Amino acid sequence: MEIILGIDPGTAATGYGVVSKDGEGRIKLLECGVIRTAASEPLPHRIRDIFNGIREIIERFHPASVAVEDVFQGKNVRSALTLGHARGAILLAAALEDLPIAEYSPREIKKVVVGTGGASKDQVGYMVQRHLRLKTPPAPADAADGVAAALCHCFVSSSPIP
Amino acid sequence: MEIILGIDPGTAATGYGVVSKDGEGRIKLLECGVIRTAASEPLPHRIRDIFNGIREIIERFHPASVAVEDVFQGKNVRSALTLGHARGAILLAAALEDLPIAEYSPREIKKVVVGTGGASKDQVGYMVQRHLRLKTPPAPADAADGVAAALCHCFVSSSPIP
Repeated sequence: MEIILGIDPGTAATGYGVVSKDGEGRIKLLECGVIRTAASEPLPHRIRDIFNGIREIIERFHPASVAVEDVFQGKNVRSALTLGHARGAILLAAALEDLPIAEYSPREIKKVVVGTGGASKDQVGYMVQRHLRLKTPPAPADAADGVAAALCHCFVSSSPIP
Repeated sequence: MEIILGIDPGTAATGYGVVSKDGEGRIKLLECGVIRTAASEPLPHRIRDIFNGIREIIERFHPASVAVEDVFQGKNVRSALTLGHARGAILLAAALEDLPIAEYSPREIKKVVVGTGGASKDQVGYMVQRHLRLKTPPAPADAADGVAAALCHCFVSSSPIP
C-alpha cells in the first residue's frame, strides 16, 4: 500500500489530501483538510505555519510521494511572488524528508480527474467524491483540490508505460 | 554588540553579509558570501540548499535580526514565482528561530547606503567598501548586495526617532 499526499498551495489556505493506493489500484481517502493562515500575521509567520502544518502531515502519514499543484499563469507579479513563498515552504518540507515531488498544473489535474482541463470547482469536487466513493465532495474546495492533486498522481503514476 | 544578517535572495545565487554594530554605532564586516545552487538541480533541492545555507549562517553568528531585500517589480510572473520559492525558504529559516525580519526594497537599500535609489551595482560595491573600510568591494556583487541590506538595516534602525 502506497500513501500519496496531494497539496494545493496558497498563502491564505493550503488544501491537502492524503490517499492510499493498494496493490490493485484501489484508492481510499485517509484525510483531507486546509492549513489556514491569517492575513494579519507577518508573511514569515504564515510561511512557518504552512511549513509546520505540512511537516506534521508528513510525519503522521509517511507518504511515499507528494503531488503539488503547479501554479500559475496570468495573475500579477506581486501575487505570484507571495504564492511562491508558500510553495517554497511546502516543497522544502517534502525535500527535507527526501520525498519525491511531482508537480501538476491545475489543467493537468482537472484533465486527469474530471476528463477536461476546463472543469469547474464543482465538477472537481463531484469527481473526487465519485472516485473515492464519498457521501459528499470534500469541503472546502481547497481541500478537494488537494485531494484532486493526490488522485491525479495516483492515476498518472499507475498508467501503463506505452 | 549587535549582529545583523543581510540577505539578497536569488534562486541561483543568494548573497549574504554578516555585520556587527557596537554601542557607538561602529559597523564591522564579519563575513559575506554567496549560496549558489545549480540550475540542473530540481527546484525543491535548490530551495533546500538555500534553507540549509541560511540556517548554518544563523547558527554560526546568532544574528539579532535579519534584513532581506524585498524583490521585485516588473519582471514576469514565472520568475517572480520561482524567486518567491527561494525567499520563502529564507524567511522560514529566520522565522523558525523567531528572529525579527526587516524587508527593504532594492531602492530603499541603495538610497540608504549610496544616497540614491538609482545607484549602480558598482556604486553599491564602492559605498559598502567605504562604509566598512574594506580594501576592495565585497565580491561577487550578490555578496555586496547582502552586505548592503545589512548596512541599510543598521543605518535605518539606529536613526533617532523624530
